[in-house]
Amino acid sequence: MTDHRTHPTRPDFRFWWPVTVRWGDMDAMGHINNVVHFQYLESVRIGFADAIGWGIRTGSGGRQGPAVVSQTYHYRRQVFYPAELEVGVRCREVRGGSSVVVWLDYDGGRAPEIPPDLRQALTGS
Amino acid sequence: MTDHRTHPTRPDFRFWWPVTVRWGDMDAMGHINNVVHFQYLESVRIGFADAIGWGIRTGSGGRQGPAVVSQTYHYRRQVFYPAELEVGVRCREVRGGSSVVVWLDYDGGRAPEIPPDLRQALTGS
Amino acid sequence: MTDHRTHPTRPDFRFWWPVTVRWGDMDAMGHINNVVHFQYLESVRIGFADAIGWGIRTGSGGRQGPAVVSQTYHYRRQVFYPAELEVGVRCREVRGGSSVVVWLDYDGGRAPEIPPDLRQALTGS
Amino acid sequence: MTDHRTHPTRPDFRFWWPVTVRWGDMDAMGHINNVVHFQYLESVRIGFADAIGWGIRTGSGGRQGPAVVSQTYHYRRQVFYPAELEVGVRCREVRGGSSVVVWLDYDGGRAPEIPPDLRQALTGS
Repeated sequence: MTDHRTHPTRPDFRFWWPVTVRWGDMDAMGHINNVVHFQYLESVRIGFADAIGWGIRTGSGGRQGPAVVSQTYHYRRQVFYPAELEVGVRCREVRGGSSVVVWLDYDGGRAPEIPPDLRQALTGS
Repeated sequence: MTDHRTHPTRPDFRFWWPVTVRWGDMDAMGHINNVVHFQYLESVRIGFADAIGWGIRTGSGGRQGPAVVSQTYHYRRQVFYPAELEVGVRCREVRGGSSVVVWLDYDGGRAPEIPPDLRQALTGS
Repeated sequence: MTDHRTHPTRPDFRFWWPVTVRWGDMDAMGHINNVVHFQYLESVRIGFADAIGWGIRTGSGGRQGPAVVSQTYHYRRQVFYPAELEVGVRCREVRGGSSVVVWLDYDGGRAPEIPPDLRQALTGS
Repeated sequence: MTDHRTHPTRPDFRFWWPVTVRWGDMDAMGHINNVVHFQYLESVRIGFADAIGWGIRTGSGGRQGPAVVSQTYHYRRQVFYPAELEVGVRCREVRGGSSVVVWLDYDGGRAPEIPPDLRQALTGS
């Protein structure tokens, strides 16, 4: 398992996504709510999925697509409004957090093989 | 137009919906965020729509259903966590707010006739 | 009262604020949730308030600052992810919506006089 | 590290918190958004903290209180509106997720000793 306490550097990431913090992202503590950090992760994940063509497909068993099965976030520092963030993503590790995403058969509920083109787009090999 | 500054009383409403305030509904001012009040209105509106069978239907022109076209909210008092609210709804006026909802042809984008059974459920006559 | 059905044009607005729509702003209808439109209004309102120095002040009676007392939104069209929006604001009227904001004595709960510099910044006269 | 794939049973938890799913908690996939699951965890965490007196205190170095430093969630099943959930919490492990919470010196940014009464309330010993 990756040690999230090591700080990856910028070249480690395959894709970056800008996030403009909204005033409403703050909670009663006056900082960005811990839950909202996960919406930032969602934004980069969706942006990355769109960029590599990782959207919903119609396979032999019905609709297929990505689904988050697990995610972890390590809060390294508080974030305050106003702020412009850049969230980086790479396969199997995300800066400041980790999301496990499966390729799911939406209609059947099973997890089919990841299509070869997606596998290549994700791993770069 | 209804004067929202008159305080309607409990018997004026056709339907009530409980809302449990969440800690995360608060913003940096330490009170329930003004935007979240509209989520409370949405909750009662959906609950009411489900109760009277006002969901999506397949009509001759495709899928039809409700859509909010306008809404107004008057903030009479601040709300703080923790709180249990009851939000009342009645046709053409909501306690503390007002939503204009049309019956929409989702696929065609037009506004067809409201089905007679719904009209009766909404107005009680 | 302003007729919101007349479409104001770009020169009518004093201040513009960019909003990057997030995937998570969509609801189960697949469009930007009606509640989230109010978060966009909040963003421009806060941005405008910061730009004109309309933040919390310590007056003779305690802390003073703006508070929304009423707001209305007319949904002219659906918004879908992805989208980059610009939200305009002007005093007493907002494109697609209207917010009534008072200058509030936070500690006392009263509404003191608006400081002269703010009045000028808001109205431009 | 706890194996989250073992399903703890009801007696394993010290505290339960009811969550009423809101329609607006759903996203464009038509299920409860993955981010909102963390708001449910937040709700039980705050409820538990309030129940055991784990709120902000003024210590020798300033204000002290809890702060989330890390959290993990394993999505075992999709959740749909409408639903009434019960979220259980126990120290060091939460059903379906895990949050690491520290006792923080808000003003100094350090992590002081957890007060003895809190330590006892959390661990039950």
